[in-house]
Amino acid sequence: MANEQNNQTTPAAGKPENVVYIGKKPTINYVLAVVTQFNNGMEEVTIKARGNSISRAVDVKEIVINRYLPNLKERGIRTSSEELVNEDGTKSKVSAIQIVLGK
Amino acid sequence: MANEQNNQTTPAAGKPENVVYIGKKPTINYVLAVVTQFNNGMEEVTIKARGNSISRAVDVKEIVINRYLPNLKERGIRTSSEELVNEDGTKSKVSAIQIVLGK
Repeated sequence: MANEQNNQTTPAAGKPENVVYIGKKPTINYVLAVVTQFNNGMEEVTIKARGNSISRAVDVKEIVINRYLPNLKERGIRTSSEELVNEDGTKSKVSAIQIVLGK
Repeated sequence: MANEQNNQTTPAAGKPENVVYIGKKPTINYVLAVVTQFNNGMEEVTIKARGNSISRAVDVKEIVINRYLPNLKERGIRTSSEELVNEDGTKSKVSAIQIVLGK
């Protein structure tokens, strides 16, 4: 697991993926997670969120750029719909967002 | 006010701006507002939201495209920080999103 030192989400093969998933913790936790990835040498970090956490994902991006790393570039924002299977087997759709930041 | 028939937000001069502001009403209200603007002949509609309503703005975009107007194109998503002045004179920052859809 020597690879994990700089990159918590290294897939088994291919280019490392640097993703910060936004959940229900305080916004600053995710801000620091993104800043840490860049400080560890990552060239690109993707912020992902679903449902009500989408607003927090935008907060994270704005705070990272305005307060910590003003030279970062926004490389793209994409939204999508994902299908979830509920406990009773029915399906629901939830919106998702993906924000890519790069040096 | 003859101009208002097709366009609720015509500015005093220049190109008409077609903006749907997302608030706390049910999502479907805003979905129908966007669909109505396109059905009234608009070529482009902008969805704007701030703070916790950002998640709902993404829902509106996804539902409009997936369920009502699949041929629409996303012309751009931008996020920003806006400054609000509180009642006691202090200032807070709030994130905002702007999603432009076009025919």
